[in-house]
Amino acid sequence: MNAFCYKMIIAYDGTNYCGFQVQPNGITIQQVIQDKMQIILRKQVSIRGSGRTDAGVHAEFQVAHFHFSKKLDIERFHYSLNGLLPKDIRIKSIEEAPLSFHAQYSAITKTYHYHLHLDKIADPHHYNYHWHIYEKLDLQELKRAAKLFIGTHDFTSFANEPCRGSAAKDAVRTLLRIDLVEQKGGIRLEFEADGFLYKMVRNIVGFLVEVAKGKRSASEIPAILAAKDRTKAGPAAMPQGLFLMEVQYLLEK
Amino acid sequence: MNAFCYKMIIAYDGTNYCGFQVQPNGITIQQVIQDKMQIILRKQVSIRGSGRTDAGVHAEFQVAHFHFSKKLDIERFHYSLNGLLPKDIRIKSIEEAPLSFHAQYSAITKTYHYHLHLDKIADPHHYNYHWHIYEKLDLQELKRAAKLFIGTHDFTSFANEPCRGSAAKDAVRTLLRIDLVEQKGGIRLEFEADGFLYKMVRNIVGFLVEVAKGKRSASEIPAILAAKDRTKAGPAAMPQGLFLMEVQYLLEK
Repeated sequence: MNAFCYKMIIAYDGTNYCGFQVQPNGITIQQVIQDKMQIILRKQVSIRGSGRTDAGVHAEFQVAHFHFSKKLDIERFHYSLNGLLPKDIRIKSIEEAPLSFHAQYSAITKTYHYHLHLDKIADPHHYNYHWHIYEKLDLQELKRAAKLFIGTHDFTSFANEPCRGSAAKDAVRTLLRIDLVEQKGGIRLEFEADGFLYKMVRNIVGFLVEVAKGKRSASEIPAILAAKDRTKAGPAAMPQGLFLMEVQYLLEK
Repeated sequence: MNAFCYKMIIAYDGTNYCGFQVQPNGITIQQVIQDKMQIILRKQVSIRGSGRTDAGVHAEFQVAHFHFSKKLDIERFHYSLNGLLPKDIRIKSIEEAPLSFHAQYSAITKTYHYHLHLDKIADPHHYNYHWHIYEKLDLQELKRAAKLFIGTHDFTSFANEPCRGSAAKDAVRTLLRIDLVEQKGGIRLEFEADGFLYKMVRNIVGFLVEVAKGKRSASEIPAILAAKDRTKAGPAAMPQGLFLMEVQYLLEK
């Protein structure tokens, strides 16, 4: 019987992994954490993340939970786990949670940031952490387009079918905000929603950048949403600009 | 006859290189740039940097000059060179300079930044760009110690003998400022001086961190400077936290 539930906050650099979630054909962050946990706990344990992140996508704040039969010495377990993990994966905290806690289903909102490096010359330091765009962008137009995504919509046109696992049956999500924040070297776009479909942030960013380049128009957005057709919206943004930044749960509010 | 002089501003990630300056036993940034220039110019050309940076040390703003017999189409040359260079080295700009310009000897001040990540948990993203310190630091004491380095001193106690090439004959330098700036995840220390001796910034940072940990005292600094003895000052800070940020020249002021 698994009498205890633990909640972990995880930060990782997605550059060298095939995403968060375990899959048969590549090393994933979940797999690496589970393997190291098995060494410490002498038992195979599955962790469950708040959601998948793709290859190359990063997290400052991914949440996962796991059940275990015994009460853990949390501080010691935390220290040992970080000691065994590679330095591009860090467990930021571990705490006991109610047995009813579920990293995915208990979540009420999630926040992603997408970083755009806007300069003629690429940045030689952080190329794994942003999308470099050398063309001039119309940021006013980008902001205007971003506003049209806010609210409750069927986001089918901005969601991909996952390669493995099934797509969410219901594609209606509520996007609470898309904020454009200027930062050194460019901008970041902050997305907060009650949930995100597969590749939804990258697909919206891809479209917003097309608008900012003048290739697409903000006025197309209502019709694209209404079409519920992925082919209407254009290419996704590169994975390396995307960071999972927060997952909020009701109990914490 | 070399009738033209060109000044380049270079940014690079030092992680994968044995420093800036050409050396026989490893790939250096200068060597890579010269090799690519040779492909474009069909002639061997030496560039001269404002100074060396060590293995693992980065630059946002390194300056180099070179002489060439013909007038270059600068825009085209710049574009081609960045096209051939690996993405961890970027030429930010190229411009014609007076023949008297010398990247090292014409420099009047240089600025370095040193990044400290101060958190119990290491950062999984930027570990190549800062020194992670998990112990509690007394930043007030660090500031107080930093002030004692400002001014004109013989910095022999904070300079290493370079492995190759000769040490500067005169170890007197004027440190104009050491500013402590708080930033996400920690602090950075900004150093500006009329020149820096080999490993001088890293040696000062190493000492300041010892002071901030309470292992050494700010009050020791005058005696250590007066001793002109490298062994009095303690270990250097890690290379990966160091960035060359600016080189100033008289004509530009």
